[in-house]
Amino acid sequence: MSYGYAKPLNVLIKELSSLPGVGGKTAQRLAFHILSMDDARAESLANAILTAKKEMKYCSVCGNLTDQEPCSICSDDTRDRSVICIVETARDVFAMERLREYRGLYHVLHGTISPMDGRGPDDINLKSLIIRLQENDIEEVVIATNPSIEGEATAMYIARLIKPAGIRVSRIAHGIPVGGDIEYTDEVTLLKALEGRREL
Amino acid sequence: MSYGYAKPLNVLIKELSSLPGVGGKTAQRLAFHILSMDDARAESLANAILTAKKEMKYCSVCGNLTDQEPCSICSDDTRDRSVICIVETARDVFAMERLREYRGLYHVLHGTISPMDGRGPDDINLKSLIIRLQENDIEEVVIATNPSIEGEATAMYIARLIKPAGIRVSRIAHGIPVGGDIEYTDEVTLLKALEGRREL
Repeated sequence: MSYGYAKPLNVLIKELSSLPGVGGKTAQRLAFHILSMDDARAESLANAILTAKKEMKYCSVCGNLTDQEPCSICSDDTRDRSVICIVETARDVFAMERLREYRGLYHVLHGTISPMDGRGPDDINLKSLIIRLQENDIEEVVIATNPSIEGEATAMYIARLIKPAGIRVSRIAHGIPVGGDIEYTDEVTLLKALEGRREL
Repeated sequence: MSYGYAKPLNVLIKELSSLPGVGGKTAQRLAFHILSMDDARAESLANAILTAKKEMKYCSVCGNLTDQEPCSICSDDTRDRSVICIVETARDVFAMERLREYRGLYHVLHGTISPMDGRGPDDINLKSLIIRLQENDIEEVVIATNPSIEGEATAMYIARLIKPAGIRVSRIAHGIPVGGDIEYTDEVTLLKALEGRREL
Protein backbone atom coordinates (compact mmCIF):
# COMPACT_ATOMS: atom_id res chain seq x y z
CA MET A 1 0.00 0.00 0.00
CA SER A 2 1.33 3.41 -0.88
CA TYR A 3 -1.18 5.54 1.11
CA GLY A 4 -0.47 8.34 -1.40
CA TYR A 5 2.55 9.55 0.58
CA ALA A 6 5.84 10.80 -0.85
CA LYS A 7 8.46 8.10 -1.32
CA PRO A 8 10.73 8.69 1.72
CA LEU A 9 7.66 8.62 3.98
CA ASN A 10 6.33 5.52 2.25
CA VAL A 11 9.64 3.71 2.70
CA LEU A 12 9.68 4.59 6.40
CA ILE A 13 6.10 3.37 6.90
CA LYS A 14 6.93 0.13 5.09
CA GLU A 15 10.00 -0.47 7.26
CA LEU A 16 8.14 0.28 10.48
CA SER A 17 5.20 -1.95 9.58
CA SER A 18 7.57 -4.91 9.27
CA LEU A 19 8.13 -4.75 13.05
CA PRO A 20 6.13 -7.21 15.18
CA GLY A 21 2.80 -5.87 16.40
CA VAL A 22 3.06 -2.79 14.19
CA GLY A 23 0.27 -2.66 11.60
CA GLY A 24 -0.29 -0.15 8.83
CA LYS A 25 -2.07 2.42 11.01
CA THR A 26 0.50 2.25 13.80
CA ALA A 27 3.35 2.47 11.29
CA GLN A 28 1.81 5.65 9.86
CA ARG A 29 1.40 7.17 13.31
CA LEU A 30 5.01 6.31 14.23
CA ALA A 31 6.32 7.66 10.90
CA PHE A 32 4.54 10.98 11.34
CA HIS A 33 5.81 11.16 14.89
CA ILE A 34 9.37 10.55 13.74
CA LEU A 35 9.02 13.31 11.12
CA SER A 36 7.84 15.69 13.83
CA MET A 37 10.83 14.96 16.09
CA ASP A 38 13.96 17.12 16.28
CA ASP A 39 16.65 16.08 13.80
CA ALA A 40 18.90 15.14 16.73
CA ARG A 41 16.22 12.91 18.30
CA ALA A 42 15.55 11.10 15.01
CA GLU A 43 19.28 10.60 14.52
CA SER A 44 19.75 9.17 17.99
CA LEU A 45 16.90 6.72 17.34
CA ALA A 46 18.50 5.59 14.06
CA ASN A 47 21.92 5.40 15.71
CA ALA A 48 20.57 3.36 18.61
CA ILE A 49 19.38 0.78 16.09
CA LEU A 50 22.72 0.67 14.27
CA THR A 51 24.82 0.65 17.45
CA ALA A 52 22.78 -2.05 19.18
CA LYS A 53 22.85 -4.14 16.01
CA LYS A 54 26.63 -3.73 15.70
CA GLU A 55 27.65 -4.18 19.34
CA MET A 56 25.19 -6.78 20.60
CA LYS A 57 26.34 -10.29 19.73
CA TYR A 58 25.53 -13.78 20.94
CA CYS A 59 27.88 -15.09 23.62
CA SER A 60 30.03 -17.86 22.12
CA VAL A 61 29.65 -19.91 25.29
CA CYS A 62 25.96 -19.73 26.20
CA GLY A 63 24.30 -17.96 23.26
CA ASN A 64 23.01 -15.07 25.39
CA LEU A 65 22.83 -11.54 23.94
CA THR A 66 25.85 -9.54 25.07
CA ASP A 67 28.16 -6.67 24.24
CA GLN A 68 31.20 -8.46 25.68
CA GLU A 69 32.70 -11.88 25.02
CA PRO A 70 32.00 -14.09 26.89
CA CYS A 71 28.86 -12.53 28.35
CA SER A 72 28.70 -11.01 31.84
CA ILE A 73 26.98 -14.11 33.22
CA CYS A 74 29.48 -16.61 31.76
CA SER A 75 32.40 -14.49 33.02
CA ASP A 76 30.95 -13.94 36.51
CA ASP A 77 33.07 -15.99 38.92
CA THR A 78 30.56 -15.66 41.75
CA ARG A 79 27.95 -17.74 39.90
CA ASP A 80 27.35 -21.43 40.42
CA ARG A 81 29.16 -23.13 37.52
CA SER A 82 27.66 -26.54 38.23
CA VAL A 83 24.14 -25.65 37.06
CA ILE A 84 23.00 -24.70 33.56
CA CYS A 85 19.49 -23.40 32.81
CA ILE A 86 18.35 -24.05 29.24
CA VAL A 87 16.03 -21.43 27.71
CA GLU A 88 14.62 -20.81 24.25
CA THR A 89 15.57 -17.16 23.79
CA ALA A 90 17.81 -14.45 25.21
CA ARG A 91 14.66 -12.72 26.48
CA ASP A 92 14.06 -15.71 28.74
CA VAL A 93 17.53 -15.21 30.28
CA PHE A 94 16.54 -11.67 31.26
CA ALA A 95 13.20 -12.90 32.63
CA MET A 96 15.02 -15.43 34.82
CA GLU A 97 17.62 -12.87 35.88
CA ARG A 98 14.92 -10.46 37.07
CA LEU A 99 14.03 -13.04 39.73
CA ARG A 100 17.44 -12.54 41.40
CA GLU A 101 17.06 -16.12 42.60
CA TYR A 102 18.86 -18.32 40.10
CA ARG A 103 22.65 -18.11 40.40
CA GLY A 104 23.77 -20.69 37.84
CA LEU A 105 24.67 -20.35 34.18
CA TYR A 106 22.47 -20.38 31.07
CA HIS A 107 22.30 -21.93 27.65
CA VAL A 108 20.15 -20.28 24.97
CA LEU A 109 18.76 -22.63 22.30
CA HIS A 110 17.57 -19.87 19.93
CA GLY A 111 14.47 -21.86 19.12
CA THR A 112 12.86 -25.23 19.66
CA ILE A 113 12.77 -28.59 17.97
CA SER A 114 9.63 -28.67 15.85
CA PRO A 115 9.41 -31.48 13.27
CA MET A 116 6.12 -29.97 12.04
CA ASP A 117 8.02 -26.86 10.96
CA GLY A 118 11.02 -28.83 9.78
CA ARG A 119 13.24 -27.74 12.69
CA GLY A 120 15.35 -30.60 14.03
CA PRO A 121 18.00 -30.79 16.79
CA ASP A 122 20.64 -29.44 14.40
CA ASP A 123 18.70 -26.22 13.90
CA ILE A 124 18.99 -25.11 17.52
CA ASN A 125 22.02 -24.24 19.64
CA LEU A 126 22.44 -27.78 21.02
CA LYS A 127 25.89 -28.94 19.90
CA SER A 128 27.66 -26.30 21.97
CA LEU A 129 25.60 -27.43 25.00
CA ILE A 130 26.86 -31.01 24.62
CA ILE A 131 30.44 -29.74 24.41
CA ARG A 132 29.88 -27.58 27.52
CA LEU A 133 28.55 -30.60 29.40
CA GLN A 134 31.53 -32.73 28.32
CA GLU A 135 34.20 -30.16 29.13
CA ASN A 136 32.81 -28.84 32.41
CA ASP A 137 31.73 -30.36 35.67
CA ILE A 138 27.97 -29.82 35.46
CA GLU A 139 25.76 -31.36 38.15
CA GLU A 140 22.31 -30.20 37.08
CA VAL A 141 20.59 -28.98 33.94
CA VAL A 142 17.33 -27.05 34.47
CA ILE A 143 15.20 -27.07 31.34
CA ALA A 144 13.14 -23.87 31.16
CA THR A 145 11.71 -24.07 27.65
CA ASN A 146 8.13 -22.80 27.24
CA PRO A 147 5.21 -25.06 28.21
CA SER A 148 4.19 -25.34 24.55
CA ILE A 149 4.14 -28.47 22.40
CA GLU A 150 7.49 -27.52 20.86
CA GLY A 151 8.95 -26.51 24.22
CA GLU A 152 7.90 -29.81 25.79
CA ALA A 153 9.22 -31.86 22.87
CA THR A 154 12.52 -30.01 23.06
CA ALA A 155 12.73 -30.60 26.82
CA MET A 156 12.06 -34.32 26.38
CA TYR A 157 14.67 -34.59 23.63
CA ILE A 158 17.35 -32.84 25.67
CA ALA A 159 16.53 -34.85 28.82
CA ARG A 160 16.96 -38.11 26.95
CA LEU A 161 20.20 -36.87 25.44
CA ILE A 162 21.77 -35.75 28.71
CA LYS A 163 20.52 -38.21 31.34
CA PRO A 164 22.77 -41.12 30.23
CA ALA A 165 25.78 -38.94 31.13
CA GLY A 166 24.66 -39.02 34.78
CA ILE A 167 23.72 -35.36 34.94
CA ARG A 168 20.59 -34.46 36.92
CA VAL A 169 17.97 -33.01 34.58
CA SER A 170 15.01 -31.01 35.92
CA ARG A 171 12.09 -29.17 34.34
CA ILE A 172 10.54 -25.98 35.72
CA ALA A 173 7.08 -26.57 37.21
CA HIS A 174 3.86 -26.08 35.28
CA GLY A 175 0.71 -25.23 37.17
CA ILE A 176 -1.76 -22.54 38.01
CA PRO A 177 -0.16 -19.09 37.91
CA VAL A 178 -0.10 -17.20 41.19
CA GLY A 179 -3.26 -15.10 41.35
CA GLY A 180 -4.92 -17.41 38.83
CA ASP A 181 -8.35 -18.94 39.23
CA ILE A 182 -8.91 -22.72 39.28
CA GLU A 183 -12.37 -22.29 37.75
CA TYR A 184 -10.95 -20.57 34.70
CA THR A 185 -7.76 -22.60 34.35
CA ASP A 186 -7.60 -24.70 31.17
CA GLU A 187 -7.70 -28.46 31.65
CA VAL A 188 -4.15 -29.16 30.53
CA THR A 189 -2.75 -26.68 33.03
CA LEU A 190 -4.98 -28.01 35.81
CA LEU A 191 -3.84 -31.55 35.01
CA LYS A 192 -0.19 -30.43 35.17
CA ALA A 193 -0.91 -28.70 38.49
CA LEU A 194 -2.40 -31.88 39.89
CA GLU A 195 0.43 -34.06 38.61
CA GLY A 196 2.98 -31.67 40.07
CA ARG A 197 1.34 -31.48 43.53
CA ARG A 198 3.70 -31.32 46.50
CA GLU A 199 3.20 -32.51 50.05
CA LEU A 200 2.57 -29.78 52.59
CA MET B 1 14.68 1.48 34.03
CA SER B 2 17.70 -0.50 32.96
CA TYR B 3 16.10 -3.99 32.84
CA GLY B 4 19.60 -5.41 33.43
CA TYR B 5 20.46 -5.33 29.73
CA ALA B 6 23.80 -4.37 28.19
CA LYS B 7 24.14 -0.68 27.36
CA PRO B 8 23.56 -0.70 23.57
CA LEU B 9 20.37 -2.70 24.10
CA ASN B 10 19.28 -0.41 26.93
CA VAL B 11 19.80 2.67 24.77
CA LEU B 12 17.75 1.13 21.96
CA ILE B 13 14.89 0.22 24.34
CA LYS B 14 14.94 3.74 25.77
CA GLU B 15 14.78 5.31 22.30
CA LEU B 16 11.98 3.02 21.15
CA SER B 17 9.90 3.59 24.29
CA SER B 18 9.88 7.32 23.54
CA LEU B 19 7.68 6.63 20.50
CA PRO B 20 3.93 7.19 20.93
CA GLY B 21 2.00 4.10 22.05
CA VAL B 22 5.21 2.18 22.72
CA GLY B 23 5.56 1.24 26.39
CA GLY B 24 8.43 -0.51 28.14
CA LYS B 25 7.30 -4.04 27.26
CA THR B 26 6.68 -3.23 23.60
CA ALA B 27 10.01 -1.40 23.34
CA GLN B 28 11.77 -4.51 24.68
CA ARG B 29 9.97 -6.76 22.20
CA LEU B 30 10.83 -4.42 19.31
CA ALA B 31 14.45 -4.14 20.42
CA PHE B 32 14.89 -7.90 20.59
CA HIS B 33 13.25 -8.21 17.19
CA ILE B 34 15.62 -5.63 15.71
CA LEU B 35 18.60 -7.52 17.16
CA SER B 36 17.33 -10.71 15.53
CA MET B 37 17.01 -9.10 12.08
CA ASP B 38 19.63 -9.35 9.34
CA ASP B 39 22.21 -6.57 9.47
CA ALA B 40 20.94 -5.30 6.12
CA ARG B 41 17.33 -5.16 7.35
CA ALA B 42 18.28 -3.24 10.50
CA GLU B 43 20.34 -0.83 8.42
CA SER B 44 17.50 -0.18 6.00
CA LEU B 45 15.21 0.58 8.96
CA ALA B 46 17.71 3.06 10.40
CA ASN B 47 18.31 4.58 6.97
CA ALA B 48 14.58 4.94 6.32
CA ILE B 49 14.35 7.06 9.47
CA LEU B 50 17.30 9.26 8.49
CA THR B 51 16.24 9.61 4.85
CA ALA B 52 12.62 10.43 5.63
CA LYS B 53 13.74 12.94 8.24
CA LYS B 54 16.16 14.58 5.79
CA GLU B 55 14.00 14.62 2.66
CA MET B 56 10.52 15.25 4.01
CA LYS B 57 9.92 18.97 4.58
CA TYR B 58 6.90 21.18 5.06
CA CYS B 59 5.64 22.81 1.85
CA SER B 60 6.37 26.55 2.04
CA VAL B 61 2.97 27.32 0.51
CA CYS B 62 0.50 25.09 2.38
CA GLY B 63 2.52 23.48 5.18
CA ASN B 64 1.89 19.93 3.97
CA LEU B 65 4.58 17.26 4.34
CA THR B 66 6.42 16.85 1.05
CA ASP B 67 9.67 15.82 -0.59
CA GLN B 68 9.38 18.49 -3.28
CA GLU B 69 8.88 22.25 -3.12
CA PRO B 70 6.11 23.29 -3.49
CA CYS B 71 4.25 20.07 -2.69
CA SER B 72 2.58 17.89 -5.31
CA ILE B 73 -0.85 19.28 -4.43
CA CYS B 74 0.17 22.95 -4.59
CA SER B 75 1.95 22.37 -7.91
CA ASP B 76 -0.89 20.35 -9.48
CA ASP B 77 -2.46 22.55 -12.17
CA THR B 78 -5.53 20.35 -12.49
CA ARG B 79 -6.73 21.20 -8.97
CA ASP B 80 -9.29 23.87 -8.12
CA ARG B 81 -7.23 26.85 -6.96
CA SER B 82 -10.25 28.77 -5.69
CA VAL B 83 -10.85 26.54 -2.66
CA ILE B 84 -8.58 26.00 0.36
CA CYS B 85 -9.29 23.35 2.98
CA ILE B 86 -7.80 24.13 6.40
CA VAL B 87 -6.64 21.16 8.48
CA GLU B 88 -4.71 20.75 11.72
CA THR B 89 -2.04 18.29 10.61
CA ALA B 90 -0.44 16.84 7.50
CA ARG B 91 -2.07 13.51 8.39
CA ASP B 92 -5.46 15.16 7.87
CA VAL B 93 -4.41 16.12 4.32
CA PHE B 94 -3.78 12.45 3.54
CA ALA B 95 -7.11 11.46 5.16
CA MET B 96 -8.92 13.98 2.92
CA GLU B 97 -6.96 12.90 -0.15
CA ARG B 98 -7.95 9.28 0.36
CA LEU B 99 -11.58 10.35 -0.32
CA ARG B 100 -10.64 11.24 -3.93
CA GLU B 101 -13.49 13.73 -3.73
CA TYR B 102 -11.95 17.07 -2.75
CA ARG B 103 -10.05 18.74 -5.60
CA GLY B 104 -9.05 22.06 -4.04
CA LEU B 105 -5.90 23.09 -2.17
CA TYR B 106 -4.98 22.74 1.51
CA HIS B 107 -3.53 24.74 4.34
CA VAL B 108 -2.01 22.92 7.32
CA LEU B 109 -2.15 24.80 10.65
CA HIS B 110 0.25 22.47 12.51
CA GLY B 111 -1.86 22.72 15.63
CA THR B 112 -4.79 24.59 17.10
CA ILE B 113 -5.40 27.74 19.06
CA SER B 114 -5.65 26.74 22.72
CA PRO B 115 -5.46 29.56 25.26
CA MET B 116 -5.57 26.94 28.05
CA ASP B 117 -2.26 25.54 26.82
CA GLY B 118 -0.87 28.98 26.01
CA ARG B 119 -1.12 28.51 22.22
CA GLY B 120 -2.38 31.62 20.47
CA PRO B 121 -2.97 32.48 16.79
CA ASP B 122 0.74 33.26 16.32
CA ASP B 123 1.69 29.71 17.31
CA ILE B 124 -0.05 28.09 14.35
CA ASN B 125 0.57 28.41 10.60
CA LEU B 126 -1.95 31.23 10.13
CA LYS B 127 0.04 34.18 8.80
CA SER B 128 0.90 32.40 5.58
CA LEU B 129 -2.81 31.61 5.12
CA ILE B 130 -3.71 35.30 5.31
CA ILE B 131 -1.03 36.08 2.72
CA ARG B 132 -2.33 33.29 0.47
CA LEU B 133 -5.86 34.67 0.73
CA GLN B 134 -4.66 38.18 -0.10
CA GLU B 135 -2.48 37.21 -3.04
CA ASN B 136 -4.75 34.63 -4.67
CA ASP B 137 -8.33 34.59 -5.88
CA ILE B 138 -9.87 32.30 -3.26
CA GLU B 139 -13.65 31.83 -3.28
CA GLU B 140 -14.14 29.39 -0.43
CA VAL B 141 -12.31 28.26 2.66
CA VAL B 142 -13.41 24.89 4.11
CA ILE B 143 -12.41 24.57 7.76
CA ALA B 144 -11.74 20.90 8.58
CA THR B 145 -10.22 21.18 12.05
CA ASN B 146 -11.19 18.43 14.50
CA PRO B 147 -14.54 18.60 16.33
CA SER B 148 -12.73 19.18 19.65
CA ILE B 149 -12.90 22.26 21.85
CA GLU B 150 -9.59 23.52 20.41
CA GLY B 151 -10.59 22.63 16.85
CA GLU B 152 -13.90 24.46 17.20
CA ALA B 153 -12.26 27.51 18.79
CA THR B 154 -9.70 27.60 15.99
CA ALA B 155 -12.45 27.30 13.36
CA MET B 156 -14.40 30.16 14.93
CA TYR B 157 -11.30 32.36 15.12
CA ILE B 158 -10.38 31.78 11.48
CA ALA B 159 -13.97 32.27 10.30
CA ARG B 160 -14.16 35.66 12.01
CA LEU B 161 -10.78 36.60 10.57
CA ILE B 162 -11.60 35.68 6.96
CA LYS B 163 -15.29 36.49 6.52
CA PRO B 164 -14.86 40.31 6.39
CA ALA B 165 -12.77 39.80 3.22
CA GLY B 166 -15.87 38.46 1.47
CA ILE B 167 -14.60 34.89 1.21
CA ARG B 168 -17.13 32.11 1.79
CA VAL B 169 -16.18 30.14 4.90
CA SER B 170 -17.62 26.67 5.56
CA ARG B 171 -17.15 24.05 8.25
CA ILE B 172 -17.28 20.29 7.64
CA ALA B 173 -20.41 18.69 9.10
CA HIS B 174 -20.56 17.10 12.51
CA GLY B 175 -23.09 14.38 13.17
CA ILE B 176 -23.60 10.70 13.70
CA PRO B 177 -20.92 8.65 11.92
CA VAL B 178 -22.17 6.34 9.20
CA GLY B 179 -22.88 2.96 10.80
CA GLY B 180 -23.22 4.66 14.20
CA ASP B 181 -26.06 4.12 16.62
CA ILE B 182 -28.32 6.97 17.77
CA GLU B 183 -28.89 5.26 21.11
CA TYR B 184 -25.19 5.25 21.89
CA THR B 185 -24.30 8.62 20.39
CA ASP B 186 -23.13 11.19 22.92
CA GLU B 187 -25.42 14.15 23.45
CA VAL B 188 -23.15 16.79 21.95
CA THR B 189 -22.84 14.83 18.70
CA LEU B 190 -26.59 14.17 18.61
CA LEU B 191 -27.26 17.87 19.12
CA LYS B 192 -24.86 18.70 16.28
CA ALA B 193 -26.59 16.13 14.09
CA LEU B 194 -29.97 17.70 14.83
CA GLU B 195 -28.71 21.24 14.21
CA GLY B 196 -27.15 20.14 10.94
CA ARG B 197 -30.25 18.35 9.62
CA ARG B 198 -30.95 18.67 5.91
CA GLU B 199 -34.24 18.58 4.05
CA LEU B 200 -34.90 15.36 2.11
